[in-house]
Amino acid sequence: MSAYIGVYGMGVMGQSLALNIAGHGYQVAVCNLEPEVTRAFLENRGADRPGLIPCYSLEAFVQALERPRRVLLMITAGPAVDQVTDQLLPLLDPGDIVIDGGNSFYADTRRREKALGAKGIRFFGMGISGGERGALEGPCMMPGGHRETYRELEALLSAISAKAEDGSPCCTYIGEDGAGHYVKMVHNGIEYADIQLICECYGLMRQVAGFTVQECQAVFEGWNRGRLGSYLIEITGKILKVQDPDTGKPLVDVILDTAGQKGTGMWTSTEGLSMGVAVPTIAQAVFARCLSAQKEERVAASRRFSWEAPPIRDRAAFLQDLEESLYAAKICAYAQGFSLLRAAAKEFGWNLDYASIALIWRGGCIIRARLLDDIAAAFQAEPDCANLMGTAVFGPVLQKAQAAWRRTAALSVQSGAACPALLSAISYFDFSRTADCPASLLQAQRDFFGAHCYRRKDREGVFHTQWE
Amino acid sequence: MSAYIGVYGMGVMGQSLALNIAGHGYQVAVCNLEPEVTRAFLENRGADRPGLIPCYSLEAFVQALERPRRVLLMITAGPAVDQVTDQLLPLLDPGDIVIDGGNSFYADTRRREKALGAKGIRFFGMGISGGERGALEGPCMMPGGHRETYRELEALLSAISAKAEDGSPCCTYIGEDGAGHYVKMVHNGIEYADIQLICECYGLMRQVAGFTVQECQAVFEGWNRGRLGSYLIEITGKILKVQDPDTGKPLVDVILDTAGQKGTGMWTSTEGLSMGVAVPTIAQAVFARCLSAQKEERVAASRRFSWEAPPIRDRAAFLQDLEESLYAAKICAYAQGFSLLRAAAKEFGWNLDYASIALIWRGGCIIRARLLDDIAAAFQAEPDCANLMGTAVFGPVLQKAQAAWRRTAALSVQSGAACPALLSAISYFDFSRTADCPASLLQAQRDFFGAHCYRRKDREGVFHTQWE
Repeated sequence: MSAYIGVYGMGVMGQSLALNIAGHGYQVAVCNLEPEVTRAFLENRGADRPGLIPCYSLEAFVQALERPRRVLLMITAGPAVDQVTDQLLPLLDPGDIVIDGGNSFYADTRRREKALGAKGIRFFGMGISGGERGALEGPCMMPGGHRETYRELEALLSAISAKAEDGSPCCTYIGEDGAGHYVKMVHNGIEYADIQLICECYGLMRQVAGFTVQECQAVFEGWNRGRLGSYLIEITGKILKVQDPDTGKPLVDVILDTAGQKGTGMWTSTEGLSMGVAVPTIAQAVFARCLSAQKEERVAASRRFSWEAPPIRDRAAFLQDLEESLYAAKICAYAQGFSLLRAAAKEFGWNLDYASIALIWRGGCIIRARLLDDIAAAFQAEPDCANLMGTAVFGPVLQKAQAAWRRTAALSVQSGAACPALLSAISYFDFSRTADCPASLLQAQRDFFGAHCYRRKDREGVFHTQWE
Repeated sequence: MSAYIGVYGMGVMGQSLALNIAGHGYQVAVCNLEPEVTRAFLENRGADRPGLIPCYSLEAFVQALERPRRVLLMITAGPAVDQVTDQLLPLLDPGDIVIDGGNSFYADTRRREKALGAKGIRFFGMGISGGERGALEGPCMMPGGHRETYRELEALLSAISAKAEDGSPCCTYIGEDGAGHYVKMVHNGIEYADIQLICECYGLMRQVAGFTVQECQAVFEGWNRGRLGSYLIEITGKILKVQDPDTGKPLVDVILDTAGQKGTGMWTSTEGLSMGVAVPTIAQAVFARCLSAQKEERVAASRRFSWEAPPIRDRAAFLQDLEESLYAAKICAYAQGFSLLRAAAKEFGWNLDYASIALIWRGGCIIRARLLDDIAAAFQAEPDCANLMGTAVFGPVLQKAQAAWRRTAALSVQSGAACPALLSAISYFDFSRTADCPASLLQAQRDFFGAHCYRRKDREGVFHTQWE
């Protein structure tokens, strides 16, 4: 009996996806570099699950698959993907499909798709979001490769994917070669921004307004019922309920406030820089993690630099402003991410459907949020919009939010609570709506010291001035 | 008669440096890929200048040099450097010195230093700042390579370099392999931030406070006499004096407000991201250029989003706050740049002397500023300081600046004037002085959705919670 698909790599994500696929009635060959890992999986999580076909060598694994073969790699991104595809290559036949389900860098995916394509192998780079639980119960999937190949995979991927509230699968064809991994990277960049914005709002509540953890908890629970409703807001509400059994304190208060970064948030920021697309809120979220890591330095500096925050008089007004500010800033973070996607689509010749991307992010993944319905609507109505902020859906929202947003931003700087992402969002908004910006002076300076020349507002051409 | 040094590449920088060197009594062989460029140089700028030895082939050029040979490449960074060194290699002898004076990426310099070193060639990566005029009259130079080699070059480089006000040469040994180009890259990153901060202050004066160009001009001229005194402030004062002969308007008002980016500012930001060092003010300056380039979109958005800036009542107080804010933000930008240098030194094993770096930036280069004397003093007193902001020199300055800085930042968001760099500087300051930051919640979220685990404030170890 042959398997419909093979999953190679029995880490936690690979195991969960294999179980998910088998649970939908497919025969799944499973394999791992170390056979004992496969064995343990079959004995533990895989016990009594029909459909799993354990394979203890790459050869057996490949032979277990019906043809054309479908191989899903669930291994660590990086050189391992090249190593495994090199080993697979002599065992495969033209027309076989290899799907990379890891967090690979899109440029690697582009390279691999080309190299394997030259040998007749159909390579697919597929971003998968949702963590272990998503993989098991239904993740959000962002597959990139040839469209005809996707059609062959569509029934399987739709079946195992998460479903949005309206029942539609959280998986769609993204585009050629690296498009799927690119969209996953941007998803993660938005996730960085989203998380940092939530943390800053929480910081303002705690440090500036003097809310207790319990009071914050109630706020997030309330927000989750409104337009801010999202997975990240929801789990924040749940997190703030948890007490530390040892100390009796809220658990969040005993967790060390240092975070790491080195992954997809960094890539998204770097891509923005190299594409010339402003993604300041994403970059600020990455930098915030860098600064959080310097705990000792921060503690030392807190003794050197003191600042008395003015008291918050009207807590209800503060909270209402905060909700509007978070919503507006979230829109800016998404606007940055989608602007980057638009630039990448142009650069790499991808035909991205932004509305569909928003729709599949509604389930399974970390940034799933009510807001995504509106984003999809905005792109459906204006697929060629220059920026999400200016669409008919979000324009009025942001115009209305300005007053509250400015009050919150001003409060943050006046109170000394660091809100780099929130501030970057409002300056992104303000810069984007500035008809005449001071870059005229910048151009004059560059022409002064480097003879870089400038253009004029009133006529075509390139000009240089002898300034002194 | 043989030449002490040869300059290869007769672009404007190469020509100017050759003239500078010859002007100091050295015999200089000059050469260019196209011989006619060398010929034109000798006929025009080089006419009646003793010491220039024109060479019309690479072979003649190499033969003209005394041994060990000293070759200064003044060619476009990138593949051209590899091409020319490949052509030079068979003509050179072990012990010869090749200096790359272009804006090469430091990783390329590290690679070249190693590859050429294996063949006995002493490769030097030297950042040069100052533009055409600096190259001719004395640039700031940042040479990286073996220290013993630098000793052989020191007399020449010191002679042709700019001199600070106290007479010391704006050139010092930076460190091994790519260190010189790295420091030049960070110099340019700081330059991006510096320029953007000046533009934002100018924007606040014009757009929020309603100053005329003439009034702004007087402000910059005044600032240049104080602690903000610097090349960029000085040329801003000069620029704002210049009228457009065609329209009679201030020239700055007819210059199109769009700027490009793709160079060293982007590299500096990318390095910060990959090293895990926060350089938000530099990154925001790069993103500001990206946004400036979208003129059409900005004009369209300006019609959609309106905001009435509250009037400025006390212009003198506004200006005083602005001066304090610009000075404080400048300190932050430098602090970010030097923090990146410290991380790079650790990563690449460079023994960087931060005080010396600050001292050579005092002349010849674009960011030369009075402030650099204080930065040098801060590093001389505390060479191992965690961050420039917390030193005995700058700590009190920033502590005192807070009130004014916060008023300016609040004013900018309340008035709707985009000040991304200024805001990023104050949030960098505030984050850096926050003892307990909301990253506790961030870590809880990551543990919730990805089982990423967390550390605790009260004891060692790594923990995971079953959150629901």
